[in-house]
Amino acid sequence: MSQQNKQLNIGLFGFGVVGEGLYKVLQQTPTLNACIKKVCIKHPDKKRNAPAELFTTNADEILNDLSINVIVELIDDADAAFVISEKALNSKRALISANKKMIAQHLPELLQLQIENETPFLYEAACCASIPVIRNLEEYFDNDLLQGIQGIVNGSTNYILSRIADDGLSFDDALKLAQEKGFAESNPKLDVEGYDALNKLSILLTHAYGIVESPEKISFTGIQNLKEADAIYAGEKQFKIKLIAQAKKLKNGEIAAFVLPQFVTKESNLYQVNNEYNGIIIESGLADKQFFSGKGAGAFPTASAVLSDLSALRYDYKYEYKKLNSSSESQLSNDFYLKVYVSFNRLLQVPHHLFEQIDEWTSNQNGCSVSGVIHFSRLQDNWWKNDYTSIILFPDAIIEESELHKSIKGKNVELFTEALTNN
Amino acid sequence: MSQQNKQLNIGLFGFGVVGEGLYKVLQQTPTLNACIKKVCIKHPDKKRNAPAELFTTNADEILNDLSINVIVELIDDADAAFVISEKALNSKRALISANKKMIAQHLPELLQLQIENETPFLYEAACCASIPVIRNLEEYFDNDLLQGIQGIVNGSTNYILSRIADDGLSFDDALKLAQEKGFAESNPKLDVEGYDALNKLSILLTHAYGIVESPEKISFTGIQNLKEADAIYAGEKQFKIKLIAQAKKLKNGEIAAFVLPQFVTKESNLYQVNNEYNGIIIESGLADKQFFSGKGAGAFPTASAVLSDLSALRYDYKYEYKKLNSSSESQLSNDFYLKVYVSFNRLLQVPHHLFEQIDEWTSNQNGCSVSGVIHFSRLQDNWWKNDYTSIILFPDAIIEESELHKSIKGKNVELFTEALTNN
Repeated sequence: MSQQNKQLNIGLFGFGVVGEGLYKVLQQTPTLNACIKKVCIKHPDKKRNAPAELFTTNADEILNDLSINVIVELIDDADAAFVISEKALNSKRALISANKKMIAQHLPELLQLQIENETPFLYEAACCASIPVIRNLEEYFDNDLLQGIQGIVNGSTNYILSRIADDGLSFDDALKLAQEKGFAESNPKLDVEGYDALNKLSILLTHAYGIVESPEKISFTGIQNLKEADAIYAGEKQFKIKLIAQAKKLKNGEIAAFVLPQFVTKESNLYQVNNEYNGIIIESGLADKQFFSGKGAGAFPTASAVLSDLSALRYDYKYEYKKLNSSSESQLSNDFYLKVYVSFNRLLQVPHHLFEQIDEWTSNQNGCSVSGVIHFSRLQDNWWKNDYTSIILFPDAIIEESELHKSIKGKNVELFTEALTNN
Repeated sequence: MSQQNKQLNIGLFGFGVVGEGLYKVLQQTPTLNACIKKVCIKHPDKKRNAPAELFTTNADEILNDLSINVIVELIDDADAAFVISEKALNSKRALISANKKMIAQHLPELLQLQIENETPFLYEAACCASIPVIRNLEEYFDNDLLQGIQGIVNGSTNYILSRIADDGLSFDDALKLAQEKGFAESNPKLDVEGYDALNKLSILLTHAYGIVESPEKISFTGIQNLKEADAIYAGEKQFKIKLIAQAKKLKNGEIAAFVLPQFVTKESNLYQVNNEYNGIIIESGLADKQFFSGKGAGAFPTASAVLSDLSALRYDYKYEYKKLNSSSESQLSNDFYLKVYVSFNRLLQVPHHLFEQIDEWTSNQNGCSVSGVIHFSRLQDNWWKNDYTSIILFPDAIIEESELHKSIKGKNVELFTEALTNN
């Protein structure tokens, strides 16, 4: 029992909404035996809802205080966060962070620092805030049995998509509303263009499959190019459009992974994940589909994840990165097909020669669209990343070579080209 | 790292579907460093899919083998399971069990044994199989902030209710189908009459609120008395009927808890939990609503929970029963109201004097029903536990005294009595 009553003396970096949330929460949870000894902030003149003697602007006041045994890093700036993290681990202080950007960008170094210093680094709050997804990937889902993960991991974009689908708002109005409600940053690029979801996917890939890949190497986009015509199309087919981060194990053991908008049907658990909520489906050979949902952002949901990390530190919990250390190494694949919907302004813009198969095309006053099958590698030169093109996956979008109907392959592309020429 | 590579030598009791599932799973997860050294079975003549030398019928062969450091108990018989559990803990061997009945009935003794022997006892598999609900209650949700839990915790009854609602089957046909598919026992009483859900609720109450209450003291029923008329009523109102185990913290800090059928609306996460799946909503002041769903029964989902307990033992994880040990003790309350629908064969059977308020009554060829508000204590003499009465809660059924509209109170009961007299 003595170990579990270990006193946690916390040095906190950052006192924004999450930092302050954590401070309040710890006051309400005396049984945790954790207290914030010092908070390092950047702007000493800002009014804070805590005693003045708690604050310092000098990081060393925390780092040199030997009674502090846990560093909790909750600042925005990823570069500064990494400097703090490095110092914390090198001084063998257990580290907790919620900074997905910092973690995704520095994962190799952070792994190394944990090993060298034999010091734990926990970051449950960095993925889906209060949803314990990292812990569950670590504890429940062994590499060989994990078939895939699919998640709505960014609350801002999900809030915007919900307003467009449910209330018929335009993208701009929905974004403005999200900002007013505090669900989107004043500079929403990180969220809206998919960077945040990408960072989370790259962290999830490490815990799910032992893949450490820098985010830039993973295909992604956000919701910035979705058009009204796409929302109308989705509505007609009774789909919802969601921004999904996903990874799927292919038959050869390699992993398909990307962040792209996707049509979701009523049958999917993700259909019900609306507004600022996050949701994640973990599919395994053992437990089948497990679904987790909850608030993916916000002061208290994030603080609650930090709290659970603090609680875990008391019994010396650490991520084992089992999959990373296992003998069978996984890697990302480019060799699979996707069932996609692509919309354009004019049919002539469609790079139809890139498609293996075209199943349907539409053209009306709203613009035009093509639905078909495309090889994943065709997405790599980013022809689809411009203002007038949007790309949305169909449900169960990933198709392996062996599943393609060879007979049909290519035929519809010819028909489409013909139709185009005759127009 | 050495601690985490601790070799787990398992003595397994029981080799039914779950036990065999665990055996197979461990063969596929060599990184866990866990192996089954011996399996104690009851019927040595049954064909087993494992080497003969693994088996014994003599429990002492396991209990006296000092190289065995973990006992996994996966047998059906709750009494025999308790004897094994007692011996395991008294010999300071970490214990894992999936036997909700045994745990619910012997919780006080099992708590005492854990303390006396300073030995961990984990049982994630006992509640909702693969859904990590106990762990999350332990780690994420501190007493003061946990507002309530609501769950579909029994897969058999949920499968039956899904067949009735989705396919229009009769109760008997749905039960037969559930048995054919292996989702219900040949003696389905434990599931169908709510005992299994009750046992799980009583375990959840301990981890959620530190309440150790014997199951017999908690109000409950199953789905055995639901009638066709109830399914029709639910369909008309676009409700689904689900068997829900729930606990809610009242304003005075006491806990309302029971297992009863309930109408669920489309807006609830539980609406989507169908067939043999389980789902649970945990509501907290911090993380708001967290929802978990997954397979709640079956060999592999249950084995996957046992696996996660094994994994946790490697870093000496144990339940802390924080809420049990906290200074503010919670207790169950009888002092609240429920919004209920009750159906009968004839209106004259309605004990209308028990209602505070009657909002609606119907009578047609299918039978008759009354909807209204009743004080929870009125359910305690079990007038509603008979073949011709079914009781179903409305959504958000729990009403506290302060929320009752005093002006209306009683008035409709008079109107109802009047209508009855005039009929």
